Amino acid sequence: MIVILKENPNRDQLESLIHWLQDKGVTVHSTVGSHKTILGLVGDTSSLDIGLISALDIVENVKRVQEPYKNANRKFHPEDTVIDLGTTTIGGGSLTIMAGPCSVESEQQVVAIAKAVKASGATMLRGGAFKPRTSPYSFQGMGAEGLRLLSIAKKETGLPIVTEIMEESQLPLFDDVDVIQVGARNMQNFNLLKTLGAQNKPVMIKRGMSSTYEEWLMSAEYVMAGGNEQVILCERGVRTFETYTRNTLDLAAIPVLRKLTHLPIIIDPSHATGKADLVAPLAVAAVAGGADGLLIEVHNDPPRALCDGAQSLRPEAFDELAGKLYKMHDFMKTL
Amino acid sequence: MIVILKENPNRDQLESLIHWLQDKGVTVHSTVGSHKTILGLVGDTSSLDIGLISALDIVENVKRVQEPYKNANRKFHPEDTVIDLGTTTIGGGSLTIMAGPCSVESEQQVVAIAKAVKASGATMLRGGAFKPRTSPYSFQGMGAEGLRLLSIAKKETGLPIVTEIMEESQLPLFDDVDVIQVGARNMQNFNLLKTLGAQNKPVMIKRGMSSTYEEWLMSAEYVMAGGNEQVILCERGVRTFETYTRNTLDLAAIPVLRKLTHLPIIIDPSHATGKADLVAPLAVAAVAGGADGLLIEVHNDPPRALCDGAQSLRPEAFDELAGKLYKMHDFMKTL
Amino acid sequence: MIVILKENPNRDQLESLIHWLQDKGVTVHSTVGSHKTILGLVGDTSSLDIGLISALDIVENVKRVQEPYKNANRKFHPEDTVIDLGTTTIGGGSLTIMAGPCSVESEQQVVAIAKAVKASGATMLRGGAFKPRTSPYSFQGMGAEGLRLLSIAKKETGLPIVTEIMEESQLPLFDDVDVIQVGARNMQNFNLLKTLGAQNKPVMIKRGMSSTYEEWLMSAEYVMAGGNEQVILCERGVRTFETYTRNTLDLAAIPVLRKLTHLPIIIDPSHATGKADLVAPLAVAAVAGGADGLLIEVHNDPPRALCDGAQSLRPEAFDELAGKLYKMHDFMKTL
Amino acid sequence: MIVILKENPNRDQLESLIHWLQDKGVTVHSTVGSHKTILGLVGDTSSLDIGLISALDIVENVKRVQEPYKNANRKFHPEDTVIDLGTTTIGGGSLTIMAGPCSVESEQQVVAIAKAVKASGATMLRGGAFKPRTSPYSFQGMGAEGLRLLSIAKKETGLPIVTEIMEESQLPLFDDVDVIQVGARNMQNFNLLKTLGAQNKPVMIKRGMSSTYEEWLMSAEYVMAGGNEQVILCERGVRTFETYTRNTLDLAAIPVLRKLTHLPIIIDPSHATGKADLVAPLAVAAVAGGADGLLIEVHNDPPRALCDGAQSLRPEAFDELAGKLYKMHDFMKTL
Repeated sequence: MIVILKENPNRDQLESLIHWLQDKGVTVHSTVGSHKTILGLVGDTSSLDIGLISALDIVENVKRVQEPYKNANRKFHPEDTVIDLGTTTIGGGSLTIMAGPCSVESEQQVVAIAKAVKASGATMLRGGAFKPRTSPYSFQGMGAEGLRLLSIAKKETGLPIVTEIMEESQLPLFDDVDVIQVGARNMQNFNLLKTLGAQNKPVMIKRGMSSTYEEWLMSAEYVMAGGNEQVILCERGVRTFETYTRNTLDLAAIPVLRKLTHLPIIIDPSHATGKADLVAPLAVAAVAGGADGLLIEVHNDPPRALCDGAQSLRPEAFDELAGKLYKMHDFMKTL
Repeated sequence: MIVILKENPNRDQLESLIHWLQDKGVTVHSTVGSHKTILGLVGDTSSLDIGLISALDIVENVKRVQEPYKNANRKFHPEDTVIDLGTTTIGGGSLTIMAGPCSVESEQQVVAIAKAVKASGATMLRGGAFKPRTSPYSFQGMGAEGLRLLSIAKKETGLPIVTEIMEESQLPLFDDVDVIQVGARNMQNFNLLKTLGAQNKPVMIKRGMSSTYEEWLMSAEYVMAGGNEQVILCERGVRTFETYTRNTLDLAAIPVLRKLTHLPIIIDPSHATGKADLVAPLAVAAVAGGADGLLIEVHNDPPRALCDGAQSLRPEAFDELAGKLYKMHDFMKTL
Repeated sequence: MIVILKENPNRDQLESLIHWLQDKGVTVHSTVGSHKTILGLVGDTSSLDIGLISALDIVENVKRVQEPYKNANRKFHPEDTVIDLGTTTIGGGSLTIMAGPCSVESEQQVVAIAKAVKASGATMLRGGAFKPRTSPYSFQGMGAEGLRLLSIAKKETGLPIVTEIMEESQLPLFDDVDVIQVGARNMQNFNLLKTLGAQNKPVMIKRGMSSTYEEWLMSAEYVMAGGNEQVILCERGVRTFETYTRNTLDLAAIPVLRKLTHLPIIIDPSHATGKADLVAPLAVAAVAGGADGLLIEVHNDPPRALCDGAQSLRPEAFDELAGKLYKMHDFMKTL
Repeated sequence: MIVILKENPNRDQLESLIHWLQDKGVTVHSTVGSHKTILGLVGDTSSLDIGLISALDIVENVKRVQEPYKNANRKFHPEDTVIDLGTTTIGGGSLTIMAGPCSVESEQQVVAIAKAVKASGATMLRGGAFKPRTSPYSFQGMGAEGLRLLSIAKKETGLPIVTEIMEESQLPLFDDVDVIQVGARNMQNFNLLKTLGAQNKPVMIKRGMSSTYEEWLMSAEYVMAGGNEQVILCERGVRTFETYTRNTLDLAAIPVLRKLTHLPIIIDPSHATGKADLVAPLAVAAVAGGADGLLIEVHNDPPRALCDGAQSLRPEAFDELAGKLYKMHDFMKTL
């Protein structure tokens, strides 16, 4: 950590700051310039509160040099995290394809889609039971009943399930769920993250609509700090000024996260763009860019979907896309 | 609602759409152009799912004409909402000043600050007991004990309390709280909003970091749809590319919301800027712009604050500012 | 175009608006709802000034239905534009690789890099002679001398040149240049665009840092409206809140533009990310996503580059990348 | 400037970097930590190219400590810049009100508006002759004839003129103009800025739609580095995800710039919001926040304005607003 002091800092305050830092076990090197004095702090600075130091009268600015996350940091955990779901693994070179409807609507619907996507090569079934909707007047998901229907579809197909949790109290219903998803709007619902850190199912954290890579990794850190190291990161677009697409998919997240963290990286082109015809080219690009997998909405009757139909692929379109994704994944090994 | 069809829409599908809309009680007027056909939907369209219609093969685009919020809409509720806390009111022409520490740290601290801000003219005491922090390694607030200390400060000063809730399970602890705050990161924690709609304490909803006015009002609508009409909106800056300030304070929110809604509007210049020296000019500007009140961080020892010290005013600086705010508020009545 | 009227519009004003629109050759269909009246305007509305209509007292909102660009619109020009530079073509299924240094620094430097990138498969040489720099104290490019050195490199290698123009007065110096680049900061320098529309060299327009797809296409329209149909679009990242990368590369631009326009689409991962180690994965992803080509910075000595060294690839790294790009391009034909 | 090295940097490269820096007249202090080595550079670092150092193999990150602007920096020029236009001054405690039509449309129009705004207290006449328009098919301004009409209005009213230049070649036409405006889209048209630095009329630089404070000040620096110290900064809103207003007006710019620079600060609420009914409250708030002045669009017939009518005030509304602004400005002296 680097502390940049204001011009002509009060000597007493400066000495007291240096002593306080040394008490915390940090070594302080100071560089006195013509206009500025700079303190270089060496040692374990992750427990120092940057805001606290910034607030000191003599301090102009504080800059962190080391990343504030540890468990999620590739530096301290060079090997890729691989999540084993029994029938499939996520991360470490395999290609994960999570597919299914935005919302579970009926047993018939979810089982039919599950069978279709399995036949096309999906490795997991996605489907929303608890749905975060902007309007209180929109369909809010089937809830517990939706989870029950997902279980049936799992039994019928063998596909592990990924579905979203919206609050702690729903956790007991997630027994048969394989990966618990935290939605973009809950990425910084820290109590929910702590709850998920205290249980042992894998957790997939979607990036908040305006969250930096660092904030996203800090949310993973919340789960991991609680003892649950099975975390997956899912990029789903960030909010920008562009309104043609729902959000702006940030595929640079793939190589950036690959460098910063050992956690698997999933891309969701369906929510990012909100338009079915943009899903396939971006899904293919994501695999080419090194993603560990994709989250894709598939619906047997998009126009009648109770949620987000505009971005859902029909099973036939998904079938074609899944074929391309596997070919691309194989091709990438030769590149 | 306006539905723009693709060129040469399938006739059968078009007829089936029109019948379906009419079944929903909506009158459909169609305008056939050289390139496009447009359907104008008239009647109560708030229950129509925009995504569902967008997904139809024959539809190019759907545009909403009416606001999707009702309870929060000034059109259907022209008078200002005024929230009565007994000793003070929020909205309707009065000036609300919520002041206090970012975090409650000790009885001595919170009582001393409460007394100081009351003497300066604050009408409410703010103070965080449950703190949403980006890092799991930062101070997370005193929790239940913090709420107990706020109660003591309330008893000592008579100031009503506003403090943040982070999840439903904390609600029983909020008995002595006067206004329950929903933080920016929880603005779209819809389950929490529903919970708060089902109880009867006033709720102050901070704007999400990248939330539009409409999404923000829809979050208010969640609370109001549950039966709790006592909602306050708090602007605290939106996230932009600018990094000099923590966020970009959007004071246009004041006249915009004044037009769209009848709910009181509070401005938080402390969190928006993250810098104590920017708080006073922006607080003064907010009152001049028509805000119903302010949320201001005050700490007796900013450099030792356990949270966000860099943006806290010292009691003397707050005293000077509060004086200016009241003078400005009086002056505005003469303008 | 759709005009949404305020409630209870003044009848005289409404009639006068309808007459005025009809005078412009537009047919008006009105839909009278319980709360709103909507006018559907049919015919050539591209010459109607949306701001002018919005300003009318009786108008609440105006929404465009048709795209405001014509020459750049795929609807009116379904075939891909292919730009023929003699030795190479841009668009229409070929893969364009523009490579070279950010700035031309010396004859030795630019010739050496040109030879290297040609050997690796580049189809065009890029190199800046006039450099837009944030600081007046940074190196501003070699100017006319830089263009002369690019010509020498072109003679030595046969590679066509793409380089940036910063103002009209520089145009006479661009005689030997094959594609004239308009930088992101000049995307809405409308006078420069008009100048380039009145000459006949191909023009590559970089997307402005906060420009929508539509604004970008309107800038292409400026050039095309002047009679020059040879326009190339280059995505180079948009500005967001994320600071880890210089900008956020928007690869969704590829399928979106493919649908909206017939113009070739080039991706610049070097400027978008500002980090050399992110260039290769994003370049590969761009080809997989359907881009017509790439713009890549290559420098024989990045640490000594006078500009943007941090994002430049060394010739060996570029050689490896170019090989992958061609393999990916071939593979995509089989997908 | 602070240089953070990668772990275990190559010793030879490190020594060579240190020697190179010392050759540039910079003193280097190094701090060796357990994970990182940090170099603190002391002396005049404004000429060091940050990108160049970042590109070195051994360097992980470079952070600037001092501002990269000098002439615009309040640290080196503590007194406010006051611009004297003869009949009025800008900055230094006076209130500047620039008012007039978005576009000059006719002699009758501009003279009538000029007389009206003068009578209401405007200190300068604004009016566009060269108009940057997104569409080549929109009205582009009257050009030279527009400037001639502004001169007539100036002669009739005595009001100094502020109007926009779009390229260098237009400069000879600006003889009778008092303040030359650089539009948001040209904020980083560096050649234009250099041209304006080499002449001696005051220059008002509008903030680019996605420009940081620092970039904006660097654009001022371009003009000032050329020898023209008469620069005015005009905030006109930044681009965000919010679509209700055209842009998001950033009033925090006032106290931020006041601290960083000595240049006058003007606020343009008309372009920022794009809505006439938001202009007055934000103009009042801007004066309360400490702005040196305002830029306000006034049109005698907004619905017939050839440009941006939706955001123009009628003369009567401007008259009322101007009265409030002067009262607020007087009141602020007593606060």
